[in-house]
Amino acid sequence: MDTRVKAVVHSQGASGFDLRAWSSAHLETVEQALSNWVAADAPAGLGDAMRYAVLDGGKRLRPLLVLAACEAVGGHAGAALRAACAVELIHAYSLVHDDLPCMDNDVLRRGKPTVHVQFGEARALLAGDALQALAFELLTPDDGTVSPVVQAALCRLLARSAGHHGMAGGQAIDLASVGLALSEAQLREMHRLKTGALLQGSVLMGAACGVASAAATVALGEYGAAIGLAFQVVDDILDVTADSATLGKTAGKDAAQDKPTYVSLLGLEHSRTYAQALLEQALAALDASGLDAAGRERTQALRALADMVVNRNN
Amino acid sequence: MDTRVKAVVHSQGASGFDLRAWSSAHLETVEQALSNWVAADAPAGLGDAMRYAVLDGGKRLRPLLVLAACEAVGGHAGAALRAACAVELIHAYSLVHDDLPCMDNDVLRRGKPTVHVQFGEARALLAGDALQALAFELLTPDDGTVSPVVQAALCRLLARSAGHHGMAGGQAIDLASVGLALSEAQLREMHRLKTGALLQGSVLMGAACGVASAAATVALGEYGAAIGLAFQVVDDILDVTADSATLGKTAGKDAAQDKPTYVSLLGLEHSRTYAQALLEQALAALDASGLDAAGRERTQALRALADMVVNRNN
Repeated sequence: MDTRVKAVVHSQGASGFDLRAWSSAHLETVEQALSNWVAADAPAGLGDAMRYAVLDGGKRLRPLLVLAACEAVGGHAGAALRAACAVELIHAYSLVHDDLPCMDNDVLRRGKPTVHVQFGEARALLAGDALQALAFELLTPDDGTVSPVVQAALCRLLARSAGHHGMAGGQAIDLASVGLALSEAQLREMHRLKTGALLQGSVLMGAACGVASAAATVALGEYGAAIGLAFQVVDDILDVTADSATLGKTAGKDAAQDKPTYVSLLGLEHSRTYAQALLEQALAALDASGLDAAGRERTQALRALADMVVNRNN
Repeated sequence: MDTRVKAVVHSQGASGFDLRAWSSAHLETVEQALSNWVAADAPAGLGDAMRYAVLDGGKRLRPLLVLAACEAVGGHAGAALRAACAVELIHAYSLVHDDLPCMDNDVLRRGKPTVHVQFGEARALLAGDALQALAFELLTPDDGTVSPVVQAALCRLLARSAGHHGMAGGQAIDLASVGLALSEAQLREMHRLKTGALLQGSVLMGAACGVASAAATVALGEYGAAIGLAFQVVDDILDVTADSATLGKTAGKDAAQDKPTYVSLLGLEHSRTYAQALLEQALAALDASGLDAAGRERTQALRALADMVVNRNN
């Protein structure tokens, strides 16, 4: 609790920007859109499993990053809402598959039984598969609301972030690393793909909803890479410092599964220092982006989200 | 053997068109493209599992439908090759997941051990996930070779064909139908989604690589629906009439798993009659498409493929 309050105070203190109010307004829109778009009518219980996997849970960090990056470039809000939901569907599907018995075999997620516990393994598998497809369906409406150029760019970014050189590749490394001693470089590469790619992809997808200069796009990519890595470092810290109730998932499971983590590699204090350094990197990238030419209003949500990623308590 | 020979003779006899030669030339291109595009460099064994799932196997019916439909509308060959490979990746991922122990628990596919037998369940799961993402990556190159309008249309068609109102939805119905007595309408709906949607999607994606009239698009959709259903009817027939060596997969497994099939519902002879009627429907749709205004050359590959779908022996 303390850290979250501190994070909000920090972000308000730095800029007068109220992240909690900003997030709350956007999250209401995102939750409503997800509820509308995630297939209640999918057959044979598939829709129920998909909705269970997606609705009423999660911090929605990725959607918020999409929306914040879209605001930073003055992009198209309708496209960004679709991109925000699409990224969240990819994240949700990855959790469903990651929790399966043949992967992490986890039974608790966001304080609820995992999808396969609730709906059976086969339906969980299919729900994950269908959520991935639905993500790309959301990005390609045929109602004229989003230009084909933006649709193609969003599909490209999402596919790359989710695939073998992104999230799925990182999960494969994770799987192959259990019980191994990784170097810091190897651990960073694993997390750059497993968690970082989709977080960075969220930022770039938000930027793709508008017209960003090449310099701004590079800067937003650097911002996304820094907070992507910071997210995982903090995850590793929380896995050993927080309890399951606060996390809404099983605490201490990395150690229990003998997985390499930043804490096991760097120790707790160095991990905390590293997370703060990554926050500074993310903010410095925004400083250099040219997006603040007329003041910091456009990047303030991205700045506050970076602070929240590093100083969160769950 | 007899049926396949008959199919080729039939298609040659009808139009002088040599499907085997046409397929052989296109398949060489498709195989090479798949080998180039399916990630040998994906980390931690993921690339090996992905390539194992995709390369050196399968009839490649879906890619051939994409290419034939593209030819029918005089579309962009480069876009069609990407679409052909993308559809095959979706098909391949669905087989990998379908074979998992929590689904059909099959150990033989295309005459080889299934992916999870060869690489373990977790890596098979991830390989399937990564193949789905890669399909959309193939559809969205940033090298200027495919227009954003076509990229967006292809992603839209593929996502809808693969998702909850397509293939994944059909698999959910299949899963929920084991041991149940389905009506013919229910069985048709299951297969329309499970198998038909991606076959029809293949035809429509090929058409989306060019400019087709509204009437031609409708006709190609009807053609795709008819052969999609015919494919499954023939699959059900072969499951009871062919042996595992000919099929390259376990024969008789529908009956062993107490799954409803056309043969169990209609009987063998009526199923055969139904398959032939669907072939006639598919050909009639092409007749009405307006694509043959200057002769049948443009639709001859589609015609021969429909014949092959119905008169194949594996």
